[in-house]
Amino acid sequence: MRNLKVFIAYNGANYHGFQRQDNAISVQEVVEKAIGKLLKCEPPVIYGCSRTDAGVHARRFCFNFRTDSKIPCSGFVKGMNTILPADIAVLSCEDADEDFHARFCTKSKEYVYLINNKPNRDVFLQNLAYHYPYPLDIEKMRHAALLFVGEHDFGAFCRAEGKARVKSTIRTIYEVTVSENAGVVEIKIRGNGFLYNMVRILAGTLIYISEGKRTEDDIKSALLTRNRDFGGVTLPPEGLYLNEVYYGT
Amino acid sequence: MRNLKVFIAYNGANYHGFQRQDNAISVQEVVEKAIGKLLKCEPPVIYGCSRTDAGVHARRFCFNFRTDSKIPCSGFVKGMNTILPADIAVLSCEDADEDFHARFCTKSKEYVYLINNKPNRDVFLQNLAYHYPYPLDIEKMRHAALLFVGEHDFGAFCRAEGKARVKSTIRTIYEVTVSENAGVVEIKIRGNGFLYNMVRILAGTLIYISEGKRTEDDIKSALLTRNRDFGGVTLPPEGLYLNEVYYGT
Repeated sequence: MRNLKVFIAYNGANYHGFQRQDNAISVQEVVEKAIGKLLKCEPPVIYGCSRTDAGVHARRFCFNFRTDSKIPCSGFVKGMNTILPADIAVLSCEDADEDFHARFCTKSKEYVYLINNKPNRDVFLQNLAYHYPYPLDIEKMRHAALLFVGEHDFGAFCRAEGKARVKSTIRTIYEVTVSENAGVVEIKIRGNGFLYNMVRILAGTLIYISEGKRTEDDIKSALLTRNRDFGGVTLPPEGLYLNEVYYGT
Repeated sequence: MRNLKVFIAYNGANYHGFQRQDNAISVQEVVEKAIGKLLKCEPPVIYGCSRTDAGVHARRFCFNFRTDSKIPCSGFVKGMNTILPADIAVLSCEDADEDFHARFCTKSKEYVYLINNKPNRDVFLQNLAYHYPYPLDIEKMRHAALLFVGEHDFGAFCRAEGKARVKSTIRTIYEVTVSENAGVVEIKIRGNGFLYNMVRILAGTLIYISEGKRTEDDIKSALLTRNRDFGGVTLPPEGLYLNEVYYGT
């Protein structure tokens, strides 16, 4: 039986996240149904690399699924893109090893948080960035962001109900960059794993740093005490993108 | 009476163009109603710098209107942006001379045509670019585009019903650039005026040049004979942006 490894992109504005839900439309459900239609079979179960929250986007999201179909990978990409709605696209497909699993084989992931930092809303970034119209101190945010790099207990940067789901809240962040281009600020974070709402809280903490509502000492305290109060606000989902998933060594 | 000069941006995906229509929603109607609501008056008539077709966008579009209101310009911008839907934004407002007219005082305009030239559709450019998935010869397009520069009779690059509307089809193009960034090709055209569908036909002609379906000699013939057959296809509206309107000297 083949094990297909598929990368997709999606605009999450109209979905209640990736994961299948009982009473709301999810990316998973739409993709599974499209596969069933293309391969003329019961919709298979697909295994996603990540849950994403309602409204969150993915530039590159990986899933795998098993099939007996002999469809060529190129035909799968082409066929899926004619069936899927315009806000989901299949980027690539390949035959993976039998034991490949999109979630459990992940080595690291990269998220991007986009902030429209122009005074007025951007009609072309509707649902695609968080609008924060006040000046941001990028240098200050960049400096504070370095405190996140390394292996830390990120328990303070996790939504409460997320903590119960995981054995440990220790994660390693490899890199954080804060850049600005034409009034759009991009916070990019790569790490070996992320807790529930972690990127949205880290990004919100950097905004609080810029505003002076939190200090670098607060971040250090957050990492030591796991106390959520030392962190900043949880930013809304529309600015968040799963940017890349890394496998292999 | 004040004569207010206002710049707006809009995502045209959900509108039947700028100009008020009887049976379809237009940007003009929505903006006029918002002004009426903000200034607590009958919706005034606003004078737009341009018609735009259904689905066409504007990064900077100017209109003017007369009012007795004493609202400060900054209050107008802020107030309008709370009333307008997310796909229309007021960028600026200023008191203009009594004889300023957004359409008749235009010195030049700049349009951009965006082409998603990646193999797959871009879920974040839905309705915001034309998807052309085959390789484009940018150098060849750039070279041919130079033929448009200068004062020419663009009768061949105008939709038939547009010709009846104008006294002359002679226009001056000041600059055409063709650039590529991360798989998105941008054709930028600045001129003293444009005919109906002119930018969409010019952009389509450059694609035909890349494909070898038209030659530079065909463009020369088009400019000499006004025969539409020498031009290329009219590209769809979703790639077109009114980028800037210039006034003054």
